[in-house]
Amino acid sequence: MRFHGFVAGAPGAGGPTPPRPHNPLYATALGPPVKVTVLVGSRSDLELAEKVRVRLTEFDVPCEVHVASAHRTPEKVERLVRDPSTDVFVAMAGLSAALPGVVAARTLKPVVGVPLHRGLGLDSLLSVVQMPPGIPVASVGLDASENAALLAVEILALAHPELIAKLERYRAKWREEPAPTAPAPP
Amino acid sequence: MRFHGFVAGAPGAGGPTPPRPHNPLYATALGPPVKVTVLVGSRSDLELAEKVRVRLTEFDVPCEVHVASAHRTPEKVERLVRDPSTDVFVAMAGLSAALPGVVAARTLKPVVGVPLHRGLGLDSLLSVVQMPPGIPVASVGLDASENAALLAVEILALAHPELIAKLERYRAKWREEPAPTAPAPP
Amino acid sequence: MRFHGFVAGAPGAGGPTPPRPHNPLYATALGPPVKVTVLVGSRSDLELAEKVRVRLTEFDVPCEVHVASAHRTPEKVERLVRDPSTDVFVAMAGLSAALPGVVAARTLKPVVGVPLHRGLGLDSLLSVVQMPPGIPVASVGLDASENAALLAVEILALAHPELIAKLERYRAKWREEPAPTAPAPP
Amino acid sequence: MRFHGFVAGAPGAGGPTPPRPHNPLYATALGPPVKVTVLVGSRSDLELAEKVRVRLTEFDVPCEVHVASAHRTPEKVERLVRDPSTDVFVAMAGLSAALPGVVAARTLKPVVGVPLHRGLGLDSLLSVVQMPPGIPVASVGLDASENAALLAVEILALAHPELIAKLERYRAKWREEPAPTAPAPP
Amino acid sequence: MRFHGFVAGAPGAGGPTPPRPHNPLYATALGPPVKVTVLVGSRSDLELAEKVRVRLTEFDVPCEVHVASAHRTPEKVERLVRDPSTDVFVAMAGLSAALPGVVAARTLKPVVGVPLHRGLGLDSLLSVVQMPPGIPVASVGLDASENAALLAVEILALAHPELIAKLERYRAKWREEPAPTAPAPP
Amino acid sequence: MRFHGFVAGAPGAGGPTPPRPHNPLYATALGPPVKVTVLVGSRSDLELAEKVRVRLTEFDVPCEVHVASAHRTPEKVERLVRDPSTDVFVAMAGLSAALPGVVAARTLKPVVGVPLHRGLGLDSLLSVVQMPPGIPVASVGLDASENAALLAVEILALAHPELIAKLERYRAKWREEPAPTAPAPP
Amino acid sequence: MRFHGFVAGAPGAGGPTPPRPHNPLYATALGPPVKVTVLVGSRSDLELAEKVRVRLTEFDVPCEVHVASAHRTPEKVERLVRDPSTDVFVAMAGLSAALPGVVAARTLKPVVGVPLHRGLGLDSLLSVVQMPPGIPVASVGLDASENAALLAVEILALAHPELIAKLERYRAKWREEPAPTAPAPP
Amino acid sequence: MRFHGFVAGAPGAGGPTPPRPHNPLYATALGPPVKVTVLVGSRSDLELAEKVRVRLTEFDVPCEVHVASAHRTPEKVERLVRDPSTDVFVAMAGLSAALPGVVAARTLKPVVGVPLHRGLGLDSLLSVVQMPPGIPVASVGLDASENAALLAVEILALAHPELIAKLERYRAKWREEPAPTAPAPP
Repeated sequence: MRFHGFVAGAPGAGGPTPPRPHNPLYATALGPPVKVTVLVGSRSDLELAEKVRVRLTEFDVPCEVHVASAHRTPEKVERLVRDPSTDVFVAMAGLSAALPGVVAARTLKPVVGVPLHRGLGLDSLLSVVQMPPGIPVASVGLDASENAALLAVEILALAHPELIAKLERYRAKWREEPAPTAPAPP
Repeated sequence: MRFHGFVAGAPGAGGPTPPRPHNPLYATALGPPVKVTVLVGSRSDLELAEKVRVRLTEFDVPCEVHVASAHRTPEKVERLVRDPSTDVFVAMAGLSAALPGVVAARTLKPVVGVPLHRGLGLDSLLSVVQMPPGIPVASVGLDASENAALLAVEILALAHPELIAKLERYRAKWREEPAPTAPAPP
Repeated sequence: MRFHGFVAGAPGAGGPTPPRPHNPLYATALGPPVKVTVLVGSRSDLELAEKVRVRLTEFDVPCEVHVASAHRTPEKVERLVRDPSTDVFVAMAGLSAALPGVVAARTLKPVVGVPLHRGLGLDSLLSVVQMPPGIPVASVGLDASENAALLAVEILALAHPELIAKLERYRAKWREEPAPTAPAPP
Repeated sequence: MRFHGFVAGAPGAGGPTPPRPHNPLYATALGPPVKVTVLVGSRSDLELAEKVRVRLTEFDVPCEVHVASAHRTPEKVERLVRDPSTDVFVAMAGLSAALPGVVAARTLKPVVGVPLHRGLGLDSLLSVVQMPPGIPVASVGLDASENAALLAVEILALAHPELIAKLERYRAKWREEPAPTAPAPP
Repeated sequence: MRFHGFVAGAPGAGGPTPPRPHNPLYATALGPPVKVTVLVGSRSDLELAEKVRVRLTEFDVPCEVHVASAHRTPEKVERLVRDPSTDVFVAMAGLSAALPGVVAARTLKPVVGVPLHRGLGLDSLLSVVQMPPGIPVASVGLDASENAALLAVEILALAHPELIAKLERYRAKWREEPAPTAPAPP
Repeated sequence: MRFHGFVAGAPGAGGPTPPRPHNPLYATALGPPVKVTVLVGSRSDLELAEKVRVRLTEFDVPCEVHVASAHRTPEKVERLVRDPSTDVFVAMAGLSAALPGVVAARTLKPVVGVPLHRGLGLDSLLSVVQMPPGIPVASVGLDASENAALLAVEILALAHPELIAKLERYRAKWREEPAPTAPAPP
Repeated sequence: MRFHGFVAGAPGAGGPTPPRPHNPLYATALGPPVKVTVLVGSRSDLELAEKVRVRLTEFDVPCEVHVASAHRTPEKVERLVRDPSTDVFVAMAGLSAALPGVVAARTLKPVVGVPLHRGLGLDSLLSVVQMPPGIPVASVGLDASENAALLAVEILALAHPELIAKLERYRAKWREEPAPTAPAPP
Repeated sequence: MRFHGFVAGAPGAGGPTPPRPHNPLYATALGPPVKVTVLVGSRSDLELAEKVRVRLTEFDVPCEVHVASAHRTPEKVERLVRDPSTDVFVAMAGLSAALPGVVAARTLKPVVGVPLHRGLGLDSLLSVVQMPPGIPVASVGLDASENAALLAVEILALAHPELIAKLERYRAKWREEPAPTAPAPP
């Protein structure tokens, strides 16, 4: 049985919250991560979302990318947020970037926010990171698709230890990048 | 019959959108403004919301103030947005101020956004004003409760001409403020 | 009879304000919107103003675009502001963007301000949005011509309900934009 | 005969511009400076305006301070700008500080702009300094009443050389301020 | 057996990385969360760190708070990072806030970064959030101790489902906060 | 006899300040403006300086442009500042733009500062405009060569009334720029 | 014989630069550091300068503090810069902080710049750090008197190795500051 | 014997600090500078690091450039910092630029920090310059490779007086750059 994590609506919106069974065997049932769901506010931002998916795929973490906007398609956002097979959400948006916060307000699962550098840069960055108390968003940097994917894997690795070795391999390789020393002086 | 202006949800969320009667007599039915609804994200910001209400009351414009948060109580926000007796919304929030945009995404009525100066100031200002295309928010300045009320009245006056004289009286009085000249040099 | 909304000058400037008839039948007389007037500070910014006009035309809202500058041609601004057939003003300017405020100081009709991204971006944005109390400007985002047009239509729709169905069609279409989901992983 | 410097209005606003006599003896007629006019946007900012006046008085430069707002009382601003006995204008305003630009658009005399630190600071500073080409404003720093007065005197001194010695005395005294050296180490 | 997650040093720094056993029963061994370790750069910032601990304690999540600085006590930071009983790190720092990044560079476990508002605010915020690719930090807002604690709990809940009900109770209570509506107009 | 306006050095730097004759006929001696001296900090910024010169030449105001840097060639700056035939200085610099302030500290004549947009834009703008009290700089906007020239002419016109008609012709022409109205809707 | 490091003036300003003897024994002559000279732009900033002096005194590094302003007393600045007994300069200033750059332009010795947080903070910080190429200033943070003193000592220690042990003691003590761990949970 | 300057680790991290001999002849042993070590966080930033090396080579100061990242290869950074033959470090990084601070935390030798303009510019600038008290970094401007090299030479010149003449020649040449005066008016 999986953690649905969806925040049930107000009493009048969809009936009372059903009782959630406290299954002591829950942890045992933890298998490989089911899915990271990436939401991106606009079709024109799909390229960066794809980078998240490609990187997650390299970690064998399934990933779905959806164009869904807090402003345009709140119902689609809500439907995606209710998906029980998602473990971690990544939400990417530019300008007044409400998407990460709107996702976070509707789930209790971790939400990684990626501010996109569209207008001033500072606009989306501050919109994503300066969330009011009660609704945490895990913000990474401007256009930081790579770090969004890695953060999702690190979070998943707590429950899915088979990811640990993959993270270690990634980082070992990553550490090798800055090897070169500049040529000797002429 | 009044303009409900609510943006119906996705097919699965609440049934199909009911057909909206195109009543040619609509305009004739325009009476005095029904209501301005002020939404403020946090109880601690009620004071500025009250200033909006007080000013609107002076214009004989009914006004309700609700603490409702895009993040905390999205259902309450949605319920308030569906209220057919509201003509104009005023949404006030600090930090990553998603409330005005969330309201604007769910209505076709004018939404006035008031960024509140809580964290850096620039955070809420940019969050309110830098909305993506398709969801207009009418932003006023930081903590600008006075201008939010006046803008709402100006918007209402297009349909409710009895407000015009009141606006003129307000402005005439307002124009008198800066009358004094500094005392003559010693 | 239409709402002229022009703010008459100080007593000594042009004679006493003429009495304004309070016509109880005003509301009944509301016909289709007469006009949105777009003022843009410089000839080089006409392209964005044109986008406002094109969008408004799609809503069958008449729109005039004028190059008129708060600094260069204050008299032209003033003459345009006095035009009784305008319902909503849209004022666009870059750098120290005084135009929206100057228009708002001379009318009681709604003024939508559009800061243009010319110098630092923050300069025009702050100039438009941080208006002093008493002179509301409805600011949209940097270069946000689309939202300026939509906000004008939303404001007009309060008095001109035939615009409601058009707004609903616009938004329904707009909501469809972000439909695509990224291709499945390889 | 003095330089009126007022920018005549559009043809319909006040009749044709009267011919300006080109008096070859103009320079000879230069007497002591007639006046610096300080305009401040709000009654609450009078204190800083008073500092300008006090400093100018110490230079024996007559100075008038008026509360006049580009937004509130444009006619008062216009009337003050037409005053032929003013040589230099000082315009002070906070937030979206349109006053210096509005004055500069209506005169050909030098206009010193003083951004006041009210909201974010950057708002008024950028509003005053980032003027579009064609309308120069001589901006000083945030709340810089002292420098506004000195700049006005320096400008006047070109035509009124009796001010030179006073400026030299001021600066000589001002240079003495930072004399002290910190006490010797214990 | 727990996930140590420590990034072993360069070959010459401490010997070769020991082989990490791939225990297929790892998931079964998941018990209650062991610990969240909060690192705060300076003694003067302990108050905000305490708030994180208090909130975590309410979720029955053990939490240790240490004053440890990336600049002052890098060895202490390193020692704390190697602690196998920590599941999630929270790193808080002001000014040029290097601590979260330094922690993240030495572990593969999730690191929550909290920029503290000390100098300009923007300094620590940008230092925490703008991490280079490869080292993800989950940034929350300025001084956002509450959201740091909640984000840690949400992350832990993926592996420790007994936290889910507690998160739901927290959010249910949190949602009740903005209930009051302003008093009716006088 | 002309106003030298140079601030004499410290006693040991160049001998005592010579007595300045107080010639009551000074004003009578005012002829056409002698010169505006433009100082630009770097050879790469000469293009903008040239624009100042070209515009001044159109006003028949002699203008010299010099590459002289507050940091590189302080002696050259000092020598140019002592030039008695200069009426107004224009100082242009980017980055940490000390040149306008250094000029202003060595003369009592008006100094127009032009921040150049090289690094962040805000750097030179704040460096030029935020002068400490006692040393006024008349700042114009980023790269605002046009306004620098106009401000210099306005200042000169106080003493050289033959410039007034030229300023009026300039502004009349300038006012005509924004004449066009966008084409009628299709 | 000590390194004077003064940048001789332009040929015409004070005669030709005297030949500088290249003494091969220079290094041998290195004794204890002679002096750090702290220049602070305004009397009101003496307190922070005093902190630099107190800290340097604890390192047995002689230190003189002078109020000397790039704008007010350039001759005093120049005289202090010529002082051959100074090894390192510390220059502190707020607003448009030209002092560090002016000192650096007149010496070849290291100049530590300390931006003071007076106006916006960003103004002095950018003025100090964004120096044009050719004139290096070693900027520390806003109001960072402690780091200014330490940086001066580190620089001096290259030539005065007796300072090394003192730096090590300072840092050892400094490293002990963040020892405490928060009390155990209740 | 040279100043190693490496900050020994905490007691438990690598054994007790070895006793440092206090050799009274240290100063006598000062020979030509051994080396400036430039650390750059990413391979893509090598070009600017090369500029530092080229300039230092012109001063006959040996220079090594290494790609070493505070986040990626902390052990490499640590190894380079322990190199006793380095006199001054130059650390260059973009975004959240932790490298200069991490180097400074591990040495007592002077560290020059160069913020690289990658994301917003302000991010790396604030990260480098706003160091907490106790860890001085000598920040130069954005991408200021030239000034980083010069500052290193100025620092070295205190102990290596043969550099003084080279600095004087550099500056003399540098002073000649801004010689040209703009062509005479047409």
